[in-house]
Amino acid sequence: MVTRHDLYPSRTTRHLDPIPRQDPVIHARNQHRWEGPLDETSLSRYERDGFLWFKGFFSQSRVSQFLNVLKELEKDAELMKSDQVILDPGSGGLRSVFAMHRISAAFDELTRDPRILGMVRQLLGSEVYIHQSRINYKFGFQGSGFDWHSDFETWHAEDGMPRMRAVSASLMLTDNNEFNGPLMLIPGSHQTFVPYKGKTPPANWKKSLKAQRVGVPGMEALAELANWGGIKAPKGPAGSLLLFECNTLHASNENMSPWPRSNLFFVYNSIENRLQEPFAASEPRPEYLGARHNIQPLDMHDEFPEIAGQGVPSL
Amino acid sequence: MVTRHDLYPSRTTRHLDPIPRQDPVIHARNQHRWEGPLDETSLSRYERDGFLWFKGFFSQSRVSQFLNVLKELEKDAELMKSDQVILDPGSGGLRSVFAMHRISAAFDELTRDPRILGMVRQLLGSEVYIHQSRINYKFGFQGSGFDWHSDFETWHAEDGMPRMRAVSASLMLTDNNEFNGPLMLIPGSHQTFVPYKGKTPPANWKKSLKAQRVGVPGMEALAELANWGGIKAPKGPAGSLLLFECNTLHASNENMSPWPRSNLFFVYNSIENRLQEPFAASEPRPEYLGARHNIQPLDMHDEFPEIAGQGVPSL
Repeated sequence: MVTRHDLYPSRTTRHLDPIPRQDPVIHARNQHRWEGPLDETSLSRYERDGFLWFKGFFSQSRVSQFLNVLKELEKDAELMKSDQVILDPGSGGLRSVFAMHRISAAFDELTRDPRILGMVRQLLGSEVYIHQSRINYKFGFQGSGFDWHSDFETWHAEDGMPRMRAVSASLMLTDNNEFNGPLMLIPGSHQTFVPYKGKTPPANWKKSLKAQRVGVPGMEALAELANWGGIKAPKGPAGSLLLFECNTLHASNENMSPWPRSNLFFVYNSIENRLQEPFAASEPRPEYLGARHNIQPLDMHDEFPEIAGQGVPSL
Repeated sequence: MVTRHDLYPSRTTRHLDPIPRQDPVIHARNQHRWEGPLDETSLSRYERDGFLWFKGFFSQSRVSQFLNVLKELEKDAELMKSDQVILDPGSGGLRSVFAMHRISAAFDELTRDPRILGMVRQLLGSEVYIHQSRINYKFGFQGSGFDWHSDFETWHAEDGMPRMRAVSASLMLTDNNEFNGPLMLIPGSHQTFVPYKGKTPPANWKKSLKAQRVGVPGMEALAELANWGGIKAPKGPAGSLLLFECNTLHASNENMSPWPRSNLFFVYNSIENRLQEPFAASEPRPEYLGARHNIQPLDMHDEFPEIAGQGVPSL
């Protein structure tokens, strides 16, 4: 039996100290670094903070269609009963629908938008595919929060994602303000892997999608990272876009305003970082939580296919 | 049997619509309005919003002593077991100690600080006494939030406070920032009384101090008020002071930062607005939650008693 070397051990019975990141933040190396839409200012900021915020990236009309998609999905009784749908533990309302890019053509095209896909390829330095996608909805006065966590910790332990070479995109479908439970991030936290002490329970994902208890960093490590990097909660109108590194610690508080908060969430993973066996769970999570079969590299979606690849016609 | 007329009925079995405020916001009338430290700009703002925020009102050194008082109180095993002390429902840590102005001389003197007492007398148009006081402590990562509510609704229903003629003061002992669960207020909400549908359970206060369920406004009324007035969460350093009208809706979210949040809270009631029998509860709450015996009008505390009342010596 060959034992895999694990760069990021977690879910252990003994306490392990935080581990410095073992991967680059920007995977396009040397002269390839600038082959894409992001300039050096943005690249350096992403390297430093672990996220980039694009206030008002798309127009509101470009994104409002997705709220209608959500309303349509709610009428699908079959889907509503499936594990792909997560209800709010507080209100019982619809909170998340997973694998949205396989349900909705509009969502699929969005994940292949040249602007977003161009940035993501530049950050990951390779072709990419969608590891996970979902639409989130947080009700006014009712939407529960989510404790601090690194997505990579779970994807590594439970999905078998070997390295830190994935980027999450979050596209706001509603305004993000101080009071409707916006995403909070700890700048710089992506540079540290915080192992979790405690084994992964069987089928942990059935609980963890509602309220994560296993895999979250300890309070001491969390306080140190937050005291070092501070906390940021980007605000902006519907259409704003957040790109964040897979190991950046993030959380959200309850929505105590009457204003709902909704966003699309989709994760790009490098095709050179495909899932293996889980590093710390008895079996992999379902395909809709971590793709291991549907891993075709994404091609860009051009809205004008008839002139795509033909260059700009001369004036 | 004489039935009291109740201007603000609540805790009823039938739904009642919101009731417009039946009391002035500033009780000093006509030319008496300007007899005090607040100028017309501040008075008008208080009338409009139902609160005033004084960023950095006291120096940090003036207020840091109170955190030491709290540490001393924690060592008092007898006190810790009493009903006057509220533990956090999440963490089990010390969250509030009531009737602080009767325990701590420093707190008593603070409630009689000429600057604060001067403003409060001007707003309430009479002599005043302390209806309730406490010190609050919200832990990093653990401090629970508090749902939207009007204090007056409870003080009227459960304490028998007849009119809206009370002002709450909240003095920050730590920095108040976006992430440590600061107080949120709905500007203008003090102009509307939102009755609660449902009877007051016996000894409701034993539960309501941990998490209020009875007396909170319905979601529809709340949404209307928040959509009208918006939501504000004043931020500032330790030493900042908030004065807010007894019927202003307020709430706080969980503290998801490592930074604790602590404040002193003390309520001034007009001596012309003394407690009667509860309007909607079987018996009054304890003295430390709503004073009905210790209601001596406050006199100003001068730090230089030897020259108090002597005027400023001539140059």
